[in-house]
Amino acid sequence: MATDIATRVYNHTFRIDPAIRTLLDTDFYKLLMLQMIWKMHRERQVTFQLINRTTSVRLAEIVDERELIDQLDHARTLRFAKNELIWLAGNTFYGTRQIFEPGFMEWLAQFRLPDYELTQRDGQYELTFSGPWTGTTMWEIPALAIINELRARAAVRTMSRFDLDVLYARAKAKLWSKVERLRRLAEEGPLKVSDFGTRRRHGFLWQRWCVEALQEGLGDNFIGTSNVKHAMDTGLEAVGTNAHELPMVYAALARDDAELRQAPYAVLRDWATMYGGNLLVVLPDCFGTTAFLRDAPDWVADWKGARPDSKPALEASRELIAWWKARGRDPQEKLVVLSDAMDVESIEEAARALRGQVKLSFGWGTHLTNDFVGCAPAGADGQLKAISLVCKVVEADGRPAVKLSDNPDKALGALDVVERYRRVFGANGMARHPVEV
Amino acid sequence: MATDIATRVYNHTFRIDPAIRTLLDTDFYKLLMLQMIWKMHRERQVTFQLINRTTSVRLAEIVDERELIDQLDHARTLRFAKNELIWLAGNTFYGTRQIFEPGFMEWLAQFRLPDYELTQRDGQYELTFSGPWTGTTMWEIPALAIINELRARAAVRTMSRFDLDVLYARAKAKLWSKVERLRRLAEEGPLKVSDFGTRRRHGFLWQRWCVEALQEGLGDNFIGTSNVKHAMDTGLEAVGTNAHELPMVYAALARDDAELRQAPYAVLRDWATMYGGNLLVVLPDCFGTTAFLRDAPDWVADWKGARPDSKPALEASRELIAWWKARGRDPQEKLVVLSDAMDVESIEEAARALRGQVKLSFGWGTHLTNDFVGCAPAGADGQLKAISLVCKVVEADGRPAVKLSDNPDKALGALDVVERYRRVFGANGMARHPVEV
Repeated sequence: MATDIATRVYNHTFRIDPAIRTLLDTDFYKLLMLQMIWKMHRERQVTFQLINRTTSVRLAEIVDERELIDQLDHARTLRFAKNELIWLAGNTFYGTRQIFEPGFMEWLAQFRLPDYELTQRDGQYELTFSGPWTGTTMWEIPALAIINELRARAAVRTMSRFDLDVLYARAKAKLWSKVERLRRLAEEGPLKVSDFGTRRRHGFLWQRWCVEALQEGLGDNFIGTSNVKHAMDTGLEAVGTNAHELPMVYAALARDDAELRQAPYAVLRDWATMYGGNLLVVLPDCFGTTAFLRDAPDWVADWKGARPDSKPALEASRELIAWWKARGRDPQEKLVVLSDAMDVESIEEAARALRGQVKLSFGWGTHLTNDFVGCAPAGADGQLKAISLVCKVVEADGRPAVKLSDNPDKALGALDVVERYRRVFGANGMARHPVEV
Repeated sequence: MATDIATRVYNHTFRIDPAIRTLLDTDFYKLLMLQMIWKMHRERQVTFQLINRTTSVRLAEIVDERELIDQLDHARTLRFAKNELIWLAGNTFYGTRQIFEPGFMEWLAQFRLPDYELTQRDGQYELTFSGPWTGTTMWEIPALAIINELRARAAVRTMSRFDLDVLYARAKAKLWSKVERLRRLAEEGPLKVSDFGTRRRHGFLWQRWCVEALQEGLGDNFIGTSNVKHAMDTGLEAVGTNAHELPMVYAALARDDAELRQAPYAVLRDWATMYGGNLLVVLPDCFGTTAFLRDAPDWVADWKGARPDSKPALEASRELIAWWKARGRDPQEKLVVLSDAMDVESIEEAARALRGQVKLSFGWGTHLTNDFVGCAPAGADGQLKAISLVCKVVEADGRPAVKLSDNPDKALGALDVVERYRRVFGANGMARHPVEV
C-alpha cells in the first residue's frame, strides 16, 4: 500500500478544486438558446438573479463568501477548449449535423462569462448577472452548480474519511437500487430516461458517476444527458431544448397586453426558424398551461411535443393529450417530456399510466444527481438535502420579467407585475402544490 | 482526470496479486499456540486437512488449480519481516510484555511454511499439510484465507467496473448499518467486540476496511482484531487465545480411555505454564461442553473465562454461568467470549440477555468480514455467500484425531474414532443445529 507521493502532493497543492471545469460543463439547451439569442437578440440587456426558494436554508451562513468568489472568478477564466469547439461543430445533435452555424462557433470561441454582483441579505446571497443576454444567460447553470456544490462541500467538510466512504457507498447503493427498479420498469414497455441534473447536482464527479451508472444499468433506455461535457466524454446524446427565459424575456418586452398574450407563441415562431424535428418541444407552463393551450395557434399542435414543468405530471400529460386530440392530432405521435422533480416512483407511475397513449421521456434531475437523503452517517442529512435554488431572468431591457407557472408557489417576480400577467393570462388550471426542488 | 501511468502499468504487471502478504497475516492465537508447540511438542508430527462442510459448493470447479498453487507457493516464499519480529518482541499483548521468549523469536525469524499436498476429489480440493506440528499448524489460516479469497475473486471476475463499484458500495453500506446498530447497543451498556474474521474473509483489503470501520464506528467498544498484521498496522490489540487443535492432538496421543478423558485438562495445565491472566480462556466444547464441565478439576473454574464455540450462544453462556456458580465462583468476574457465527442480531440478543450476569466479549468473524448477501448487482449473490470451510487436525503421530463438538453436525474425523470418543465423553448436552459458517 505504497503512497504515490506525486499524486498526494498534487492533490494537496490545488490552488482551487473547481466546481466548474469547463464552459462545456453546462446544459445543452443553454447552447441552443444562446445561438438563437446571439442571432436574434444580440443587443438585449437581460438580468439574471439567483433565487433560493428554500429560505429556511441560510446559504450565506453555510457557503463561505471567499470560496464562492473564488469559484465564480475561476469560472470566468474558462474558455471553450479547442477540442470542445471541434466536437460541438462536428457532432450530430438530435439527428442534425452542424446545428451550430460557423459564425456562432467563431463567436463562441471568444466567449467568457461576464462579471457578476454579489451581496448578502437576510442570510441569503444576492447574486446578479447584468448585461447583454448573450453573456448573462450562460451564468445560470454554473452559478447554480457552484452554489449547490459548495453547500455540499460545507456539509461534508467535517466528516471523517470513513463517514465520507460510507456516505458515497450508501449514495451509490441507493442510486443503483433506483436503476434496478427502472430496469424492471423497462421490461414492461418502452422507457426513455435522460439526466437533467446538472444545476442541482451534489457535484461534478458525482454527476459523472450517476450518468455512467445509468449508461451501464439502463443501456438504450438511457437516452442522454443534458450536460454537454458529460455527453462529449461518455458518448451519450446531449439533450434539452429550451427554457422559461425565452418567454419571460419576450413577455417582458411586450409593449401592451395583446403583445404580452402573444409573447409565448412569438418565442416558438422564432425557435422554429432556428431548429426543427425533435427540438420542437413546447414549454407550456410559463404563464399557465391551460391558457397557453387554449390560445395557441393551430401550428403549435404540429410541434413534436411538450415539456410540462409545474403541474402534477399525470394531470399535465392528460391535459396535453386531450388538447392534441381536440386539435385533431394523434397523441401517440407526440412526445411528453416529464422533468419536474421526477424520481423513480413518479417515473413508474407516469410510465404505467400513460403507456400507449403518448410517447414519453423523463428528464431526471435533482433526485438523480443529488439524492443523499438517508446516506450521511453522522446525521448531516439535512445539510445534504437538495434545496429549491433557481437562477432566473428578472429584467429585460430595464423592464421587469416574471413567471406565473401552473403552481402559484413557483411564480417569480414583482407582485404587481405577476398580478398584471394573471389578469392577461388568467389563472385557469393553476393550483398550489408544495415545491420540492 | 489524468491517468497515473506508472500506477496503471504497475497494477497491470503484478506477477501475482497475493492473498497472503506476510506471515504476520494470521490469527494471533496461532502464534500463542505455536510458541507452546515449539516449546513442548517440537517433535510431534501433525497433519492438517482442509474440509469444506458446504459440499454443495464444488470448490475445485470454481477456484482454478493453477491460481491456487501460485498462491500457496507464494505464501511459502514469505518470511516474517524484521519490523514485524521487532514488533512481536516489543509489543505488549494482553497486558504482558515479551510474551514471546527470545529463543522462540530467533526460531520464528527462520520460519517458513512447509510443503503441502494438493489433489482433487468429487469437485473438492484435498489439501493436506503433513510434518512437524510447528510447521503445519501455521498453514491453517493462510490456507483458508487463500481459498476463500480465490473463490471471491472467481465470483467477481466477470463483473463490470460498475457492478464492482456497486458491490462494494452496498457491502460498505451494509456493514455500516451494522456498526450503527452496535453503536446503539453500546449506549445501553458495556459492549466489547473484536474481529475474528481472518480465515473466512472476502479478502485482505476488505478485512482491513471492516477493521477500520469498526475502529472508527465503535471506538473503545472495538477491543481488537485476531489478525496480527492488521493489529500491527492499525494500533489495535491483537486478540485470541487457543483453538481445538490442542485438545484434538492431546486426545489423539492418549494411550487409553483414562488418558483420553484427561486430555482436555492436560492442555489447560500446559497452557497455564506458558500464559496467564486474560489468556486463560477455556475452549470447552471440543468433546462436549457438558462433559468437560462435569469432569473438570476445580482449578479450571479459576480460569478467566470460556469461549463456547458450537452450542447456541445463550444456552452455552447460561450453562457456564451455572457451572461457575456451582463451583462457588462469581460469574460476574468471568468472561464469556462468543464467537460461533455471530452477527448483529445474535450479538444484540446475547448482550441484552446476559447483561450484568457475566463479562461478555464477541468475536465477530465471517458475518463481519464476508457478508456480501444482497450486495451483488448481477445476481452473483450465491457465489459470494460464505461457506463453512475449515482446516483441521486429522492425525497426530500417525494416530487419528477427531472433534465431537456440542453440535454433532460439526463433529470431524473417522466415524469409528468419533464413536469411541462418544463412549468416553458421553453425548450429554449435545444437540444438532444447522451449521451456518
